[in-house]
Amino acid sequence: MKITIAQLNPTIGDLRSNAQTILTIAIEAANNGANLLLTPELSLCGYPPRDLLLKPEFIDAMRSELEQLAADFPENLSGLIGFAERNQNAEEKGEKPLYNSIALIQNNQIKQIFHKHLLPNYDVFDEVRYFQSGELPNHFKLDDIHIGVTICEDLWNDEEFWGKRAYGMNPIADLVALNVDFTVNLSASPYTIGKQQIRERMLTHMAIRFDQPIIYVNQVGANDDLIFDGGSFVVNRDGLLCDRVPQMKPCNHTIRWENQKFVCTDPIAPILDQSAELYAALVLGVQDYARKCGFKQALLGLSGGIDSALVAAIAADALGAENILGILMPSPYSSDHSISDAKQLAENLGIKTQTVPIEPVMKSYDESLAEIFSGTEFGIAEENLQSRIRGTLLMGISNKFNYLLITTGNKSEIAVGYCTLYGDMNGGLAAIADVPKTKVYALCEWLNRTTEVIPTNIITKPPSAELKPGQLDQDSLPDYEILDDILDRIVQNRESLDQIVAAGHDRTIVEKISRLVKIAEFKRRQSAPGLKVTDRAFGTGWRMPIAQRWG
Amino acid sequence: MKITIAQLNPTIGDLRSNAQTILTIAIEAANNGANLLLTPELSLCGYPPRDLLLKPEFIDAMRSELEQLAADFPENLSGLIGFAERNQNAEEKGEKPLYNSIALIQNNQIKQIFHKHLLPNYDVFDEVRYFQSGELPNHFKLDDIHIGVTICEDLWNDEEFWGKRAYGMNPIADLVALNVDFTVNLSASPYTIGKQQIRERMLTHMAIRFDQPIIYVNQVGANDDLIFDGGSFVVNRDGLLCDRVPQMKPCNHTIRWENQKFVCTDPIAPILDQSAELYAALVLGVQDYARKCGFKQALLGLSGGIDSALVAAIAADALGAENILGILMPSPYSSDHSISDAKQLAENLGIKTQTVPIEPVMKSYDESLAEIFSGTEFGIAEENLQSRIRGTLLMGISNKFNYLLITTGNKSEIAVGYCTLYGDMNGGLAAIADVPKTKVYALCEWLNRTTEVIPTNIITKPPSAELKPGQLDQDSLPDYEILDDILDRIVQNRESLDQIVAAGHDRTIVEKISRLVKIAEFKRRQSAPGLKVTDRAFGTGWRMPIAQRWG
Repeated sequence: MKITIAQLNPTIGDLRSNAQTILTIAIEAANNGANLLLTPELSLCGYPPRDLLLKPEFIDAMRSELEQLAADFPENLSGLIGFAERNQNAEEKGEKPLYNSIALIQNNQIKQIFHKHLLPNYDVFDEVRYFQSGELPNHFKLDDIHIGVTICEDLWNDEEFWGKRAYGMNPIADLVALNVDFTVNLSASPYTIGKQQIRERMLTHMAIRFDQPIIYVNQVGANDDLIFDGGSFVVNRDGLLCDRVPQMKPCNHTIRWENQKFVCTDPIAPILDQSAELYAALVLGVQDYARKCGFKQALLGLSGGIDSALVAAIAADALGAENILGILMPSPYSSDHSISDAKQLAENLGIKTQTVPIEPVMKSYDESLAEIFSGTEFGIAEENLQSRIRGTLLMGISNKFNYLLITTGNKSEIAVGYCTLYGDMNGGLAAIADVPKTKVYALCEWLNRTTEVIPTNIITKPPSAELKPGQLDQDSLPDYEILDDILDRIVQNRESLDQIVAAGHDRTIVEKISRLVKIAEFKRRQSAPGLKVTDRAFGTGWRMPIAQRWG
Repeated sequence: MKITIAQLNPTIGDLRSNAQTILTIAIEAANNGANLLLTPELSLCGYPPRDLLLKPEFIDAMRSELEQLAADFPENLSGLIGFAERNQNAEEKGEKPLYNSIALIQNNQIKQIFHKHLLPNYDVFDEVRYFQSGELPNHFKLDDIHIGVTICEDLWNDEEFWGKRAYGMNPIADLVALNVDFTVNLSASPYTIGKQQIRERMLTHMAIRFDQPIIYVNQVGANDDLIFDGGSFVVNRDGLLCDRVPQMKPCNHTIRWENQKFVCTDPIAPILDQSAELYAALVLGVQDYARKCGFKQALLGLSGGIDSALVAAIAADALGAENILGILMPSPYSSDHSISDAKQLAENLGIKTQTVPIEPVMKSYDESLAEIFSGTEFGIAEENLQSRIRGTLLMGISNKFNYLLITTGNKSEIAVGYCTLYGDMNGGLAAIADVPKTKVYALCEWLNRTTEVIPTNIITKPPSAELKPGQLDQDSLPDYEILDDILDRIVQNRESLDQIVAAGHDRTIVEKISRLVKIAEFKRRQSAPGLKVTDRAFGTGWRMPIAQRWG
């Protein structure tokens, strides 16, 4: 038996186009003699469809599209297609209105429907908001081969691997008890740094524990804040990997099932090194957000600093250097090198630039506010004003020419509020909002591994917002190595202040950072969607009250 | 037996202060001879604590605070106190880490702990993210009186009343089977227009159906986007209401249990009329957001239009007219009446104003952007620029003097994107973001019911953003009566385009509005928290993808 893995990049809600893509691949697979086509979780609507699922018309349209796809499907090919299915008994039984389902298409019919069992409802996941858990084991026979079907989270509850249970049941155990020959896992698992290694270690462990070959099919492509990295793979019952589809791009691999094991002929794509992988994920995130929102071009402010330098490089790789416009907006507080460094960067990348000095606008605001501000000292209000002038200029150009404005703040500064709401936070997408400053440096070093992409002076000079004379980030913040470690403990590990101090940090600094994280919540609530690359991003999975007094 | 209902306004996460408030009321209640004190759901931490619940230190501190409260409690008083309790078996059984719990304090001990059964996980509610469902019926005896305990959603699943089930079980049925004498429902139920009537009709129905007296205790006060309206009440087994605590303010009522029925001596507070209730809710929302974030003063832009007029009135009632600053920012496109109307409004309300004409700043931007914009026509970019200049001026004053900026957009314009991101959308709180334009008019008419608060000309003149000469809202949008009906059908009722057309609307208009709602999602994602007053607000309960192609 030949099985084709379709690692797809659907656009959320674009049912017709997603179905068309599946059909095209299905026809090609059938022509190559494939018997079974595997697609990711919710492949018809894309993951995550979020509150589109609450629209009855959307659910109806998805069903119609599935039926049409079944009718059009190659006759000799079976297919597993992800869709959201109405739960007909919801109101009578007091259940959720939908199932997260997989349809088995066979002989141009919807032959069986499988329901996801384990519904993630943590971090960015809200599946209990929409879906009822399935209760029956999901399996079917194809040419006498007995196949178990699991959907994403269904395989993320191995208490041996994790050292704890997250759900009461482990669906693969039920499938193995039914003597399935192998199990497929149809997923939409978002990228985080190091996640692919975890997936492979976990499924290797389960393959050996349950004596069960497993095919793991992942979605690829970015949808708003979530990047799906693909990296679909196949392990045999001995736990050995026999196939891996490339990360970060749509791709189809065909494998064979022979003598109770998988035989794979496509080359096993490597897992990218951490920096290469992270960079490729960010490029994919920018590319897909722009494409799926209909932007061909993007702009960003180039300050001469390292954050905007990295984002410019990402944007150029995502949309083509010729489609990126960098705006230089020097003020009287800007150093000479901020201009020269930004221009050198633009030259290295091959992107266009425009320069708009902000001093005249600063002066006009100063004059307009002179009466109201009279007798006060230069302070945060005036610093923010510069940032807001720049943000307003960028949005003006964005609105005028329909360029996507990409905002350049990193996770460290967003965490402590070292950024200006309605200023440098302006933009449709925050490309590196989940990348800590120390990783920003690491990515730039990596970009420069063979030739200078990011001008060296941008990497080596002390970081500064340049909003007042001689200002340096480290006047208000600890060194970024220290800051990032403290932030990681607060944000990701949820450590207490005592724990963080016990780990060797200065209590005064820890208390200050903790307080800054808390009081910056109002800024983060209004920030642009930021590409998630860690296990705990400030985004759809960060749900912190603003008006609160804890900590 | 005497029972005191404590309708509390906790601050999220302020464990010590919330406990202190409970203790003060407990001592007073005990002095008045009360036997039992009832507090709302999660009364120790306030509702909703959201992701604070993910911090182990927070859960530990809540437990300590509860133990201290028990130790300090009046000896002869029993109390039901809401808190989040660790689920000790979570990792072994694969369950959620916490329970949404009520502690029974008796004789200075934590005598029993009750777990919430039905966990809302729709709209703004995310309880399955944190909590495991309780399994055992919650009840206890006090002086031989047998009392059933339910927590908020536990009583929102009467299939007779709703015509459908939302959960598989109905906890009151189990309690009645155990022969409890009466049931208490400890709630944190957010305000929406008309919700109090629904609560009372529902519990009246259940009291009669189950032959069961019910005490309903609600939280009061606002936490970010959610307003809790109080309105705690008591129904006897005949379904007759015998007590109602006033809406929109903290208040304690004491009732007696005699001969199998409740006897109440406090006056039954009336339910406010719809406009009075909505206005009071918005005032509470602004007041609590400011107070709980530490602001004593607020500012807003006064355009001379009806939205800012209404918000100015709300702000003045919330914080005191002397604490409100209105900023007039006329442009060359502003009509004369926009200034005179705004000044008249300020005089009527007794708030301060400052005037900052924006033409000089407009000119400086025009000059700065002249080269980049050369050869283009005046358009959206230039319109937005005016709005962003105003937003920047307001934020400058906000930053300088630590005033809370309140933003003034209504639900209709936020729905269709008739608002400028980083411009008029700027602010810490969006006071009327969930109030449709037609209700904005209704509220202003209501404010003027005895004397002119909102200048008549503000109500009668055609609405205009005044961003270009002679511009009127109705140049780009249908009449607000039509727009609001269409929006209600799209946003709240989730009707299909065909259904909306069948209801009598023009297809071209419906398609246009539907498209506008979709493409404005990126603006709403970055909007300030908006006070929720309808069943479907654009806020924490609205989770729509941005980069999507449905509809």
